[in-house]
Amino acid sequence: MHQAQVTPIVCVRGGAARRIDDSVAVERPLEIRVRIGGSEQVLTTTMRTPGEDEWLTAGFQHAEGIVHDASDVLLFEALSDDAVVVELGPSAAAAVAASERRFVTSSACGVCGRSSLAGMETVARAPRPHDHPRLSAAVIHGLPAALRVAQATFERTGGLHAAGLFSTAGALLGVHEDVGRHNAVDKLVGRLLLTGRLPAAEHLMMVSGRASFELVQKAEAAGIPILAAVGAPSTLAVERAVAAGMTLLGFVRDGGFNVYSGAARVAGLDDAVDAA
Amino acid sequence: MHQAQVTPIVCVRGGAARRIDDSVAVERPLEIRVRIGGSEQVLTTTMRTPGEDEWLTAGFQHAEGIVHDASDVLLFEALSDDAVVVELGPSAAAAVAASERRFVTSSACGVCGRSSLAGMETVARAPRPHDHPRLSAAVIHGLPAALRVAQATFERTGGLHAAGLFSTAGALLGVHEDVGRHNAVDKLVGRLLLTGRLPAAEHLMMVSGRASFELVQKAEAAGIPILAAVGAPSTLAVERAVAAGMTLLGFVRDGGFNVYSGAARVAGLDDAVDAA
Repeated sequence: MHQAQVTPIVCVRGGAARRIDDSVAVERPLEIRVRIGGSEQVLTTTMRTPGEDEWLTAGFQHAEGIVHDASDVLLFEALSDDAVVVELGPSAAAAVAASERRFVTSSACGVCGRSSLAGMETVARAPRPHDHPRLSAAVIHGLPAALRVAQATFERTGGLHAAGLFSTAGALLGVHEDVGRHNAVDKLVGRLLLTGRLPAAEHLMMVSGRASFELVQKAEAAGIPILAAVGAPSTLAVERAVAAGMTLLGFVRDGGFNVYSGAARVAGLDDAVDAA
Repeated sequence: MHQAQVTPIVCVRGGAARRIDDSVAVERPLEIRVRIGGSEQVLTTTMRTPGEDEWLTAGFQHAEGIVHDASDVLLFEALSDDAVVVELGPSAAAAVAASERRFVTSSACGVCGRSSLAGMETVARAPRPHDHPRLSAAVIHGLPAALRVAQATFERTGGLHAAGLFSTAGALLGVHEDVGRHNAVDKLVGRLLLTGRLPAAEHLMMVSGRASFELVQKAEAAGIPILAAVGAPSTLAVERAVAAGMTLLGFVRDGGFNVYSGAARVAGLDDAVDAA
């Protein structure tokens, strides 16, 4: 399990487009199981970059008040690349139960905390046309500035994420801000839902940060076919976008962007790439 | 409830320090309750920036598969600034129960998902000396470059958060990377725990992103007295740092930083501020 994975992308810088291999940060679920006195249960599932799983697990359990020093961890075992089990003494039982009671769901992290890997599957959607709607590279180049101008509170605090809904002609239809990037997306989708505009199959969403798996999943659930991010995507975000037939754009800034999935929706791009 | 709040800080740019009023992005818990057929329960608690709570709630419930269109929401009611209730039809009961089963805890968001506001309280710590350990502004200025150099995977992908442990003399003692910023901190704290080095009362932690409430809370639980962030803090992060007697530094980059709490640990700063 590596921290980065090489992925073929289309890299656009100004008017030039070319196919390259890019390194993408690995995002994978980790199921953390707890064994106490022969009884085993799932404590949580978190999305993480593989490596240092033993430290991640210990740190998480420390923050939860489940372990307090090294002697509390009787055994750590990797069951697979994506699942570990920690054996704890009987004194930890109460803290494990309390941790379960404290948490129910998570909004800032759409998929963290699902109690099993099976819980991460999304509702199957109808297949969508792979080249509709289409938008131009020029529209994409203009997205970051349009989003930034609309971020009233970010300008004052430097501390808010944003999610903007755009037409494929580049018109900003709404922007939502929050300290949690998933909340900004939830606000955008919730507004569409309450105003009877879901699925938003003719629009694109632009986010101010990185594109994680859960943001792709939320866009997919809302029927939004194109997700653009100022920052980097993760491997699992790319995989989900490919599976969902979505267009995923990353590093949309400074007159450039990368296409990780669904390049057919970007008008003129295939010609440019083929000519390169 | 506003999206930004004015907070007194010490602003350091190069060798000059002055007290100013700064705008900080508001972070507050929102308890989302669900009412079905007269029976009411907490669905989740999320940290969010106030405003658009109705859209946030609808978007979250949509992503969870609990509501599908506007007609599913029978009533939305704000119980207070930090709690809302949504009345749903009986058909939503199964999806609410499934949502509960899917999620147990959250790692990428340390406090999101707690099922009640009471669950957010941390373990009370012994009071700490407010001016120990001390570090110089020069050490702080050097932190971002030291962290960046050590971020091997970020260099390749642009997609990983980092948490670094430093001595107060500025020596980097360890760096951990992850797609989730809370995971990077969990890895750092977990390593300290498993190697018998908690509480880390003589060290400081530097994170590559923003300083949210949960990151302050994780540093506090690990006994780390100083948290430095490349990005902005939230209001709740500042409040928690003040309550915990911690030093909180934000916007540590480009030869400057802001002190939101615990300025007495920064050597020479009081003199500079008083002289200004």
